[in-house]
Amino acid sequence: MITLSEINTAQQNLPPEIIRTPIIFSNDLAERLQTQIFLKAENLQVTGSYKSRAAFTILNNLTPAQKQKGAALSSSGNFAGGFAFMGRLLDVPTTVVMMEKTAPFKVEKARRYGAEIVMCENRFEARFETLDRLQQERGLKSMNHFEDPLVIAGHGTIGLEILQDLPNAEVILVPISSGGLIAGIATAVKALNPQVKVIGVQPEGSKAAYLSYKAGCVQSIKSVDTVCDALVSTQPGNLPFAHIREYVDDIVVVSEESVKRAVALLFETAKLVVEPSGAVGIAALLTGVVSAKGKVVNLLSGGNISEDKFVKILHQVKLTE
Amino acid sequence: MITLSEINTAQQNLPPEIIRTPIIFSNDLAERLQTQIFLKAENLQVTGSYKSRAAFTILNNLTPAQKQKGAALSSSGNFAGGFAFMGRLLDVPTTVVMMEKTAPFKVEKARRYGAEIVMCENRFEARFETLDRLQQERGLKSMNHFEDPLVIAGHGTIGLEILQDLPNAEVILVPISSGGLIAGIATAVKALNPQVKVIGVQPEGSKAAYLSYKAGCVQSIKSVDTVCDALVSTQPGNLPFAHIREYVDDIVVVSEESVKRAVALLFETAKLVVEPSGAVGIAALLTGVVSAKGKVVNLLSGGNISEDKFVKILHQVKLTE
Repeated sequence: MITLSEINTAQQNLPPEIIRTPIIFSNDLAERLQTQIFLKAENLQVTGSYKSRAAFTILNNLTPAQKQKGAALSSSGNFAGGFAFMGRLLDVPTTVVMMEKTAPFKVEKARRYGAEIVMCENRFEARFETLDRLQQERGLKSMNHFEDPLVIAGHGTIGLEILQDLPNAEVILVPISSGGLIAGIATAVKALNPQVKVIGVQPEGSKAAYLSYKAGCVQSIKSVDTVCDALVSTQPGNLPFAHIREYVDDIVVVSEESVKRAVALLFETAKLVVEPSGAVGIAALLTGVVSAKGKVVNLLSGGNISEDKFVKILHQVKLTE
Repeated sequence: MITLSEINTAQQNLPPEIIRTPIIFSNDLAERLQTQIFLKAENLQVTGSYKSRAAFTILNNLTPAQKQKGAALSSSGNFAGGFAFMGRLLDVPTTVVMMEKTAPFKVEKARRYGAEIVMCENRFEARFETLDRLQQERGLKSMNHFEDPLVIAGHGTIGLEILQDLPNAEVILVPISSGGLIAGIATAVKALNPQVKVIGVQPEGSKAAYLSYKAGCVQSIKSVDTVCDALVSTQPGNLPFAHIREYVDDIVVVSEESVKRAVALLFETAKLVVEPSGAVGIAALLTGVVSAKGKVVNLLSGGNISEDKFVKILHQVKLTE
């Protein structure tokens, strides 16, 4: 299990390229949600998502030989961007395995930052089969970011920043896919102040971590169908799940439609571009799935959304209002 | 003329509701513009624009009798929102005169914050005629925010924050309408560090301040035709212009089309919702109208844009790319 000490080390090692993202208060949003809501704006993070933190941390901890040969991982998009960017920064060649259904917008972004892209079929497991092949054929260090403790440590730096910048935070809402993000945040937060509640949020169309949490052991689902294209894990990672069981207070599920409304609400009130995956916490407050009193921090995990998708969401929400 | 001392006083008096907006660095935006660009994000200010600062400052300085009777002003939208919000905060009844062409979205916002709205015809001077009438008929304190020194002092607080948070800033780009914003910022900045360049930006369809600056005296234009619906003054205020002549290094003009591209670019790279009026500085960098070296700060003056208009701009930009 990762501890506070390893998260502190990860924080000390973060480069200046990682932005200490602001915690933003929007009066208009607070009035609409009737909640003292604060936004940890990782959509403003370099590469447009929080993944840069863990991407740097795992690449920075490779051996010199590994750094020279290069590293590979699979990603639905945001980790790819962070990995490519941090590879360029650290002078480590990077290869990213992506499913064919990945938003072209996210594929292009990883390519622009300098990663080699290898496409694979639209099957979660195909990603790992392709990675194994790359490791065997080319000697690349294949990284499993679902089970890497350093990923949890890197993401945990967000928890430190939240409590450093807003010491009286009472509830923190965090999107969940494979669980590494909330694992890191909850580990840091509970070590510093066990009173703070950490609640995970998943969309209805991709709720493997929710099902696992309720069952008490890792559950997998056959497929996902969600507007949240960064929350597509069909099961939580084993290591993240161990931390979730230990430290997370609850996991809730929000409807797909409410996620779209949350994206539009953040546009209108907070003037922020947030991808659906980053808006699930706002959806939970908007629909009353979470009815938190006191100071609530919502993690806006990313802002990587194409113009087309953003426009489509704004239109759909308007039509149904 | 307003001095640093009055701007310092305004800063000390700002209430906690006024956000110390972050200065945001976006790597993607910097790479695209090939400039070390920093964004002073007043689109994240309470009510969605920088106007809240001056609105608070002028209302807070009313006499107790004036506060009780209430105050009125005219506004194209953003000042109205700030004025209404700060009136509610200070318990001062507010009335706002708006032209019929004002974006309904901005009218509604002022009404929601508690102002009484009085519409007038689409003629710049009609605003002042209506205000005179309200002052005579109802005894409201009619405020001329184009000539009020406290408006310049309130806006000057942005200049202080920029140099406090980014002491090595070298160039500051500021949108201009009637000139109060840049007057305040330039006065503060030049008093603290005369080396910092302050450059004003206007859109092609509304460039009265630019023409005045080049002529050396206040010029008015017959009408405006611009996508920047917060930059519609047909002439600069006399008092702001006196500060502009004294402290501003240059004023430049950008095309309407480049402003739309700047809005789309800020969406894509910086994940921020910025109204066209707030994006003119980015348009200047994007088109090479300003080719600043070193650390450039661009003031994003506001984020109040309707869904419809935002979507339309993203579409138009996409079609022409």
